[in-house]
Amino acid sequence: MDAVDKLGMTAAIEQAKNSYAEGGIPIGSALVYHGSAGEEPRLIATGHNERIQKASATLHGEISALENAGRLKPDVYRKSTIFTTLSPCSMCTGAILLYRIPRVVIGENVNFLGGEDLLRSHGVEVIVLGSEECKSLMAKFIREKPEEWNEDIGEETVA
Amino acid sequence: MDAVDKLGMTAAIEQAKNSYAEGGIPIGSALVYHGSAGEEPRLIATGHNERIQKASATLHGEISALENAGRLKPDVYRKSTIFTTLSPCSMCTGAILLYRIPRVVIGENVNFLGGEDLLRSHGVEVIVLGSEECKSLMAKFIREKPEEWNEDIGEETVA
Ligand SMILES: [Ca+2]
Ligand SMILES: [Ca+2]
Ligand SMILES: [Zn+2]
Ligand SMILES: [Zn+2]
Repeated sequence: MDAVDKLGMTAAIEQAKNSYAEGGIPIGSALVYHGSAGEEPRLIATGHNERIQKASATLHGEISALENAGRLKPDVYRKSTIFTTLSPCSMCTGAILLYRIPRVVIGENVNFLGGEDLLRSHGVEVIVLGSEECKSLMAKFIREKPEEWNEDIGEETVA
Repeated sequence: MDAVDKLGMTAAIEQAKNSYAEGGIPIGSALVYHGSAGEEPRLIATGHNERIQKASATLHGEISALENAGRLKPDVYRKSTIFTTLSPCSMCTGAILLYRIPRVVIGENVNFLGGEDLLRSHGVEVIVLGSEECKSLMAKFIREKPEEWNEDIGEETVA
């Protein structure tokens, strides 16, 4: 893993763990400016899912990181990578496309498979790490709070 | 226009005007629960673009309305219509798909054309009203603050 990916994924996983510790959905994200070749990478912002903590319907990990980043000039996104511990849902996928973020690094896509194909069809580079740490944390949460998880992805819970 | 659409579009346009009055991007949205046939429609929440007001990169009109609605059970979205004064960008399109909102009513799509085809390809009913009021308010804003508008849709402003 290169320096950009280590910086971003470490921050995203830390956010996921923090969210879990708060009783929330353990999905974390980070936005890293990687600039042009040779530039030092810079962590712009991090975030985690806030459904439970803030009764939020839109602050998924990725949206939260983008929101915490504040207003950025369009060219900043175009030289950045977004990291997320779990495959991005259609809303977060759409946010990545809106800002034309060229690169997405995903911890795992076993517990949920989002808009990876749509991203690729728009020329976005998508990397799935297959992280065991991400998989087991998310699987634990889904076992513990299936209804909250289903609500987060718009699925009805079948009793 | 039926009762649901009148309720929703009136609220969305009011939000757009409020945002303009605050110096913000004049895009408004509303989420209306239309229930099953014969049920009284209910305005769940409204919102407007908050880029300028809250230095927000994610609170577009539709995201703002969904956020203001708070946590809802998945089946509520499935019996609701979302109204927006302007065609939804890819992020807002993705949010509509995430929550499987079955119906989207759009004020206009001349100043910006978003993910209408993607919505339709997922079976979402999309209605474009072609509102002159929505068109002229948005056009006025774009003339006055082109850079802010471009930033909102991730476009670089060419001097
Ligand atoms: Ca927190
Ligand atoms: Ca306001
Ligand atoms: Zn998401
Ligand atoms: Zn939008």
